[in-house]
Amino acid sequence: MKTLADAFEHTLKDVYYAENALTKALPVVIENVTHAEFKQALKDHLVETKDQIKILNKVFKTIGVEASGVKCDAIDGLIKETEGVIEEAKGTVARNAALAGACQAVEHYEIARYGTLREWAKVLDNAEAHTLLSEILDMEKAANSKLTAIAIDSLNQTKN
Amino acid sequence: MKTLADAFEHTLKDVYYAENALTKALPVVIENVTHAEFKQALKDHLVETKDQIKILNKVFKTIGVEASGVKCDAIDGLIKETEGVIEEAKGTVARNAALAGACQAVEHYEIARYGTLREWAKVLDNAEAHTLLSEILDMEKAANSKLTAIAIDSLNQTKN
Repeated sequence: MKTLADAFEHTLKDVYYAENALTKALPVVIENVTHAEFKQALKDHLVETKDQIKILNKVFKTIGVEASGVKCDAIDGLIKETEGVIEEAKGTVARNAALAGACQAVEHYEIARYGTLREWAKVLDNAEAHTLLSEILDMEKAANSKLTAIAIDSLNQTKN
Repeated sequence: MKTLADAFEHTLKDVYYAENALTKALPVVIENVTHAEFKQALKDHLVETKDQIKILNKVFKTIGVEASGVKCDAIDGLIKETEGVIEEAKGTVARNAALAGACQAVEHYEIARYGTLREWAKVLDNAEAHTLLSEILDMEKAANSKLTAIAIDSLNQTKN
């Protein structure tokens, strides 16, 4: 990594790895969720995640680089934390609220990375990538807001 | 973990571990930053992080539990990613922009966790914890906004 363009390419590979890892991790979370609306929101987000991978393929095309991922320690840690929550909260009343919290940590990670990538695309005069990454960023923000609403309105109310 | 109160205590221990880990990780990042305003913002945030640990001690008191951390895979992964960026971007023009991006991923993780904890405190009728956690959440949001501003106005402009 030398230039901002290199940093852009590297971080793009990070999020590509992350989204692909999430297509494998999300079904396990969905399986362990027992709240209908929350389960549906995650199912919708799994479909969206697969769409985002297609959008990322287009971003790679704008820089003439073949789409590929590089191991991203951050998402690996976030997924490991979520798996820990599944294990610890299994069968308890707190499981849905705890899992929503873990999923929101993942969403926020993505919001941070796409926010950075989008700004870098702008500075690198890559208008197409800026538009595509903004599209994904908006999806992630909407997914996070939906989880916040479900958690506050419903999941968190199941206390004991 | 059984109840929402258990989830609250567990996540509180997660962020306590995370903040303590950051007091060790941040000085290394600061050392590798070469942009004066960015360096100062991180130095200020290191002071703030130590203050946040004191505030977390007060939150532990509200639930009658001794302050302690539990290993948090998410922050370990985020810190590992930041260390990777330090290594890969060392001596390059992109280093400050890349490090700001990594720091913002950490900020977003904290924003997610304090957002969840604060809402749980409210549902658990723990008004004092709600106030204290809101205080930390506001600090994290302000720190993230400051990094966004520095990155957009200055760091990202050093492209090649």
